[in-house]
Amino acid sequence: MTSKMVFWVLTLFPGMLECLRYSVVGRAWQSGLIDIRTIDYREFAADKHLCVDDSPYGGGGGMVLKVDPIVRALRSLPTGTGRRVVLLSPQGKIFRQEDGRRLAAYDEVVFVCGRYEGFDERVRAYVDEEISLGDYVLSGGELGAAVLIDAVARHIDGVLGNSGSVLTESHGEGCLEYPQFTRPEVYEGVAVPKVLMSGHHAEIERWRRKEALRRTFLRRPDLFEELTFGTGDYALLEELVAEYPELAGLREGWQHLRHQAKRVRFTR
Amino acid sequence: MTSKMVFWVLTLFPGMLECLRYSVVGRAWQSGLIDIRTIDYREFAADKHLCVDDSPYGGGGGMVLKVDPIVRALRSLPTGTGRRVVLLSPQGKIFRQEDGRRLAAYDEVVFVCGRYEGFDERVRAYVDEEISLGDYVLSGGELGAAVLIDAVARHIDGVLGNSGSVLTESHGEGCLEYPQFTRPEVYEGVAVPKVLMSGHHAEIERWRRKEALRRTFLRRPDLFEELTFGTGDYALLEELVAEYPELAGLREGWQHLRHQAKRVRFTR
Repeated sequence: MTSKMVFWVLTLFPGMLECLRYSVVGRAWQSGLIDIRTIDYREFAADKHLCVDDSPYGGGGGMVLKVDPIVRALRSLPTGTGRRVVLLSPQGKIFRQEDGRRLAAYDEVVFVCGRYEGFDERVRAYVDEEISLGDYVLSGGELGAAVLIDAVARHIDGVLGNSGSVLTESHGEGCLEYPQFTRPEVYEGVAVPKVLMSGHHAEIERWRRKEALRRTFLRRPDLFEELTFGTGDYALLEELVAEYPELAGLREGWQHLRHQAKRVRFTR
Repeated sequence: MTSKMVFWVLTLFPGMLECLRYSVVGRAWQSGLIDIRTIDYREFAADKHLCVDDSPYGGGGGMVLKVDPIVRALRSLPTGTGRRVVLLSPQGKIFRQEDGRRLAAYDEVVFVCGRYEGFDERVRAYVDEEISLGDYVLSGGELGAAVLIDAVARHIDGVLGNSGSVLTESHGEGCLEYPQFTRPEVYEGVAVPKVLMSGHHAEIERWRRKEALRRTFLRRPDLFEELTFGTGDYALLEELVAEYPELAGLREGWQHLRHQAKRVRFTR
């Protein structure tokens, strides 16, 4: 028996999740590696007008999602183990790559999507955690749920054709990805770096690692300071210090590699 | 003549953007406040097999989007002014609420979506900026484009029914939103805070501001430290210090309000 990861999305707009029928996630869904099931809050409205929102106590513009239809929708789920209930909210913990790996270990993840001006505060007592995509406001949680399903599904065995891909890509090791090139060799006067055409595997790996380190330092110094360096990084980092003297201040992060580096050949 | 903001999305999966036909963004699209136009890279493939990707120089798994179909798709756009070309990439600047406001000032924003293992590095020379949703990897840029269109469109006049909403909501002023409640008054034993039923407008505003400050401090101390406080905040912040002694360390951020606060009544 294979275990299939199930994503539930509780929403007012089930149709929005159809955007996951494409590409990598769509193939995983189609092939049964994952399942994405939507539940419409309106099915759990208490009145015949299917009303799921109401004006806020204390006044103010906009409508607030009622607590009751959300809780009833949650309770309508079949009994399950290994289930995590996630509220999408701009007030939640900001999602990062490691949260994708963490959530992929559950059998089921339930995404509770807000809409309108927000939801009744009391909803918070019925969820396991709150996640935000980032410091920006969206019209609802649905796009957030779609993004999270994509980011989580990539960690499930078999979803990416090449199971190593999720590790070598951007943020997989906390490092930004090295530059990629494909045909043609020269495009509008700009050539592919010669080393990539050399066929010399070790030199190519070395160049890629150095460029990944360079790019992370230049674009995301915050991520660079969190990196764990390997033995082979010592020489690359010292080369980068020659180009960017300001890097020298971070040297203590790799000085312990100095002696090891003399004995060990470059490996990623 | 009304100006309509145009979002172009260059993609291999135009169908994914159909998720924007719902709710707030869907209404803005339907009513002509914005337009969302997709362009499929495959229309710009150089060969009859509609090939838009190729294996990377230097080896490695996966396929890389070729530079030529992307550049040709960009050049196929009608001549326009006030246009900003944005590449969706996990290596870009992380999107924040203020970027939404900034991009909303352009007449057109073009989103260039990557797919597969990435895109040819040379694409970067043809865009104005690179944006990332956050520190996580997705299968492509389409969901990112959808998220950004939602976040940007909310800043366009008329998209939100109540034009004040974008300012008072989460992150609108750098503060997390205060708790919202709607009917019923008591749900599974938990009652709505009494002040919200008092009808006393100034007290309600005071409570909401205090809870917004409290929540921002507790959940996102990083945002709290960036806040600009108003005169009326002095008393609220001093009350919060009594509850959270660790807040006292941030007092210098509002001490300048001390004397003003004695003269001015509470305003947000």
